[in-house]
Amino acid sequence: MSAVQKQTVEEFAADWRSFATNRQIQSCHLESGNVTVQWDDGRKNLFHFDWLRDNCSCPACVHPVTREQVFEIADTPVDLSVVDATVIGQSELAIRWSDGHQSLFGAGWLRAHGYDQKSRQERLSAERTVQIWQADLEIPTFDYSSVMADDQALLDWLLAARDIGLTRMINMPTSEETMEHVARRISFIRESNFGVVFEVRTKVEAVNSNAYTALELPHHTDLPTRELQPGLQFLHCLVNDATGGDSTFVDGFAIANHLRLEHPADFELLTQTPVSFRNKAPQSDYRSLAPIIGLNARSEVSEIRLANWLRAPFDVAERDMPAFYQAYRKFSAMARQPEFIVRKRLNAGEMWCFDNRRTMHARQAFDQSSGLRHLRGCYMDRDELLSRILVLQRTHRASR
Amino acid sequence: MSAVQKQTVEEFAADWRSFATNRQIQSCHLESGNVTVQWDDGRKNLFHFDWLRDNCSCPACVHPVTREQVFEIADTPVDLSVVDATVIGQSELAIRWSDGHQSLFGAGWLRAHGYDQKSRQERLSAERTVQIWQADLEIPTFDYSSVMADDQALLDWLLAARDIGLTRMINMPTSEETMEHVARRISFIRESNFGVVFEVRTKVEAVNSNAYTALELPHHTDLPTRELQPGLQFLHCLVNDATGGDSTFVDGFAIANHLRLEHPADFELLTQTPVSFRNKAPQSDYRSLAPIIGLNARSEVSEIRLANWLRAPFDVAERDMPAFYQAYRKFSAMARQPEFIVRKRLNAGEMWCFDNRRTMHARQAFDQSSGLRHLRGCYMDRDELLSRILVLQRTHRASR
Repeated sequence: MSAVQKQTVEEFAADWRSFATNRQIQSCHLESGNVTVQWDDGRKNLFHFDWLRDNCSCPACVHPVTREQVFEIADTPVDLSVVDATVIGQSELAIRWSDGHQSLFGAGWLRAHGYDQKSRQERLSAERTVQIWQADLEIPTFDYSSVMADDQALLDWLLAARDIGLTRMINMPTSEETMEHVARRISFIRESNFGVVFEVRTKVEAVNSNAYTALELPHHTDLPTRELQPGLQFLHCLVNDATGGDSTFVDGFAIANHLRLEHPADFELLTQTPVSFRNKAPQSDYRSLAPIIGLNARSEVSEIRLANWLRAPFDVAERDMPAFYQAYRKFSAMARQPEFIVRKRLNAGEMWCFDNRRTMHARQAFDQSSGLRHLRGCYMDRDELLSRILVLQRTHRASR
Repeated sequence: MSAVQKQTVEEFAADWRSFATNRQIQSCHLESGNVTVQWDDGRKNLFHFDWLRDNCSCPACVHPVTREQVFEIADTPVDLSVVDATVIGQSELAIRWSDGHQSLFGAGWLRAHGYDQKSRQERLSAERTVQIWQADLEIPTFDYSSVMADDQALLDWLLAARDIGLTRMINMPTSEETMEHVARRISFIRESNFGVVFEVRTKVEAVNSNAYTALELPHHTDLPTRELQPGLQFLHCLVNDATGGDSTFVDGFAIANHLRLEHPADFELLTQTPVSFRNKAPQSDYRSLAPIIGLNARSEVSEIRLANWLRAPFDVAERDMPAFYQAYRKFSAMARQPEFIVRKRLNAGEMWCFDNRRTMHARQAFDQSSGLRHLRGCYMDRDELLSRILVLQRTHRASR
């Protein structure tokens, strides 16, 4: 391999990250067309020929400017084979293919993408960042000006939103556009059937949501009626002169995990039974069908979906209905238990930002005649939160 | 029950639909606290006490204005019981509860929500509307002016988008704002990391997507890097003077169903193996993790997620990697088979509207020097499509 080819791999690797490693490749071994790499710390990675060919990052396989793959594995015959595999300077693996193509892989990239059991386990562990909380949570609180001015403060705030799922911002202006300014510091806002921004104050004609009344609302997630519930919810308080109306929060993951431990059969039912949610109004008719507790690809709790007043009648087989109501009652009852509930009044110039698919929120009833109450809200998907964190982490680390 | 109470049930039923039925309630029967309803056509519905209490639609249980539930089942003891069940005039079921509460259910509503096996099966069948297609599809085509002026034409278009997943609009102006006007005839547009509206024309600096080059693109779905891929995709052609660049489409559901039939093990792998997609750019870093074939709660194919150039390296256990590549190769190869591919050139003043989570799209390479090519695109979620259809169906029926 020439120096030019080496440089090419670095330059065009189809990934924005760099893959530093202290590990060196001790040797490689070709068998049945696949390559085994032996590292200096004893780890062994088997790389199948399809996988290696698929991930060739030479400028013919990966577009030099977009950094996206042009090559498709379906372009090569299934009997393609490795003719030669060589380690170069303990830091690169060079492959020559039966059709004459050549590929070069850096040690750092190989180490980061190895798929032996240990490597996969390490990656999984690194992704587990959820911190469960109960009533004694000290709500992570962030200063408006710092977050607006400083990327480090921004990152700290976003990590709390991701891992704890409940944050408070203080010292904010009470002007209408402030919330959008903060949200756009992360990314674009997700519009919904309630608009780009929604206003929470009692309306005379509260035609489409209990949220627009002065009623107490039970703990819930917003927009369970949509296939994808919004990830982040922002609620900025402009005025709060009314008596009552405190905010309360429950970590839905805490409840779900508790249920999983104490009543596994109920947990199972809530993860496997699709429930229909709907919100019908004169100009819209939204319906979704999904379980109340959602699991990710690794069977970890990754979503709560529940607003009691937006549920359609349960549609469960006759023989299963009693057990399902038992499970549903248990979950609802837990969301009312004081040991799970964090309660705090939101004052003017403060804002909640929480994971709407995890942290169930509610408000106490309030006295409409006692004073004005005006909140503005908007949503953002988890995609934007996670993308922003990853970009910030290219240059910053968490403070804590 | 008084006349006032009856009227109340009609007025405040927490649903916008009316529930007409020709069926009459012949009798009801109370046993172990649950109620069995016997219909005049022989059908029997068991209604559990929790279910009946939960669905009481009296004005104390359902908010008179928002039509949303205020009552929560967790408000009642688990030993609540039915004291009395009576059929009134073969068209209503009246319940008196052990705590004194009273509920009234209309025959139409009960018939529509019964959860015996037959009723559930009927509802399922009514929801199955997908029409699979191959190369010989005559693309459903709609006239711009009709759709803009006439709700019936609008409904016909939207049903084709829902059930066939590929439609064409013709006779459109070629002004920039036209696409938004049509899209907003349905609902709001879904913004993405490519903006509210994206422009597809070759750029000198194609930094973030192969779509912005003149390359041939393989069949793909857009934004597989997001947790929820956009449902509808609109692509409006303003100029197409370039040689080449024809659009091609494949029904991803057709391929998936074919694979399910012919190679069930490969199908299984593609539905159960999470694949990581990513799109990294200087200011964003999107990643998702989901299988290539998505199933709904009823194990029917409901989503395809694939853009070859946005896949991260497969992260599958060593022993499973060869089988997974075999399945992936098979799926990719099928998306290239002529019998599945619909090919058509999009001319200026025409627009594609297709289900981005079902209909994989591609374009042939084109000759940049031969003339201009300018498309504008935007996205919308399936939620908006389905809501709009349901609202239109309150007053219209499909033409076909």
